[in-house]
Amino acid sequence: MNPEKALEISRRVAEEVEKAISGIAGTREAGEVVGMGKDGTPTKRIDKLAEQAALRVLGEYNVTVVSEEVGVTGEGDVYVALDPIDGTFNAEKGVPIYSVTLLFSKSRKLGDAFFGYVKNLATGEEYYSDGVKSYRNGKEIRASSTESLRCNAIVYYPNRDLPFRRVRIFGASSLEICYVADGRFDCFIDLRKGENGRGFLRVYDISASLFIAKNAGARVSSLDGDDIWEKEIAMDERFRIVVSGEKIHDRLIEMLL
Amino acid sequence: MNPEKALEISRRVAEEVEKAISGIAGTREAGEVVGMGKDGTPTKRIDKLAEQAALRVLGEYNVTVVSEEVGVTGEGDVYVALDPIDGTFNAEKGVPIYSVTLLFSKSRKLGDAFFGYVKNLATGEEYYSDGVKSYRNGKEIRASSTESLRCNAIVYYPNRDLPFRRVRIFGASSLEICYVADGRFDCFIDLRKGENGRGFLRVYDISASLFIAKNAGARVSSLDGDDIWEKEIAMDERFRIVVSGEKIHDRLIEMLL
Repeated sequence: MNPEKALEISRRVAEEVEKAISGIAGTREAGEVVGMGKDGTPTKRIDKLAEQAALRVLGEYNVTVVSEEVGVTGEGDVYVALDPIDGTFNAEKGVPIYSVTLLFSKSRKLGDAFFGYVKNLATGEEYYSDGVKSYRNGKEIRASSTESLRCNAIVYYPNRDLPFRRVRIFGASSLEICYVADGRFDCFIDLRKGENGRGFLRVYDISASLFIAKNAGARVSSLDGDDIWEKEIAMDERFRIVVSGEKIHDRLIEMLL
Repeated sequence: MNPEKALEISRRVAEEVEKAISGIAGTREAGEVVGMGKDGTPTKRIDKLAEQAALRVLGEYNVTVVSEEVGVTGEGDVYVALDPIDGTFNAEKGVPIYSVTLLFSKSRKLGDAFFGYVKNLATGEEYYSDGVKSYRNGKEIRASSTESLRCNAIVYYPNRDLPFRRVRIFGASSLEICYVADGRFDCFIDLRKGENGRGFLRVYDISASLFIAKNAGARVSSLDGDDIWEKEIAMDERFRIVVSGEKIHDRLIEMLL
């Protein structure tokens, strides 16, 4: 499989997910709990419908899918990290910031990724990267070149004073990391600690957008400054992440340590 | 003037503002500084175009307008607090959460308001209140009835640990307060301190949405718990605000004091 094929598949997935949820996004029905996901969190109707639609498309290809509700499915050599809806709460409530996101990799390792895709299902805005460049709505994007920490930041959660000019929390990490990839914001930081001090972000939430950000010139690391590309596309990985324009990354890490 | 007429005028204003900015929202041009507003902050091109369009419509009526860039204009008995674009940064960047907002009052006092209007210019979602009920896209809305502080909150800025389940910061206070009016979120809190310990929010940013929230059953107060309806529609008012479902308001104030 090559990036062109992965783009074609991703667009079909996005189209089918859009169709599947078009009647219920923003309604009470969307948020009804219909089961328990393999990630250990309750599955909402909108997540279930979206995942079923996505898996119908991906099932036609020789891929192994790692996804929120069903866990690991398929036996192909190509690994796909899928989040059918990232920003479920926004989708439930009708806030126009939620996405479908897919990362394609030649192996179980994030570092072997060759295509990343994120689409805002409310607005149609589409991001992808072929591993060389990154694009929004077909136009090449570049991350911020700011040198100042008095910048525009997305931070989960800023429970202390930080030097940023603006802080935003939109509730859909895949799109928010794309907002750093295209320079709308200067950094994305996730400080949250879950069990055992691990982060909250899952590989299917953020790996596609991290790939897009990296190929748009952003720096991507763990909160400790470590490389994340050796990590695996697995259900139990959790991340605490810093994504930013390259000129401020070291200083952000230093400040946050 | 009655609420029906104010709705008609508001919709014309929204339509003209949409037309005026449709070519430049999300472009570099939108953010170019073209002057200095009467509020003491730089005027961006998108704000200027939007305000000019809004004032062309409002100039046809016997109203006094209080607005971000021009300050006070007109001599009518009806006061209009206007923000042609609330969420300018989102509008500049193409993040689909920014609005036009208008409050109509029979006098300079907020307490004499008789109509409030907020429209998301990116999505077309429309909120208004006629002083009796409040509506989103023509359907009546009600604020949250949650009794738990482990709820969904919008907070500027959560620089300490807070008990909320989710914290969001979307960057357009008028719409965010409407998200409390319609129960999408359980509270909106602005903790920011500006000069002299005053808040950041201006009367034209938030008064329409506060009116909408109140008439949807939400409680509205200053951060100290004080009533805000005696305040005036004036350029120099600043607010620190708590808007929430009525069952948690007292506990929120107590917690924040």
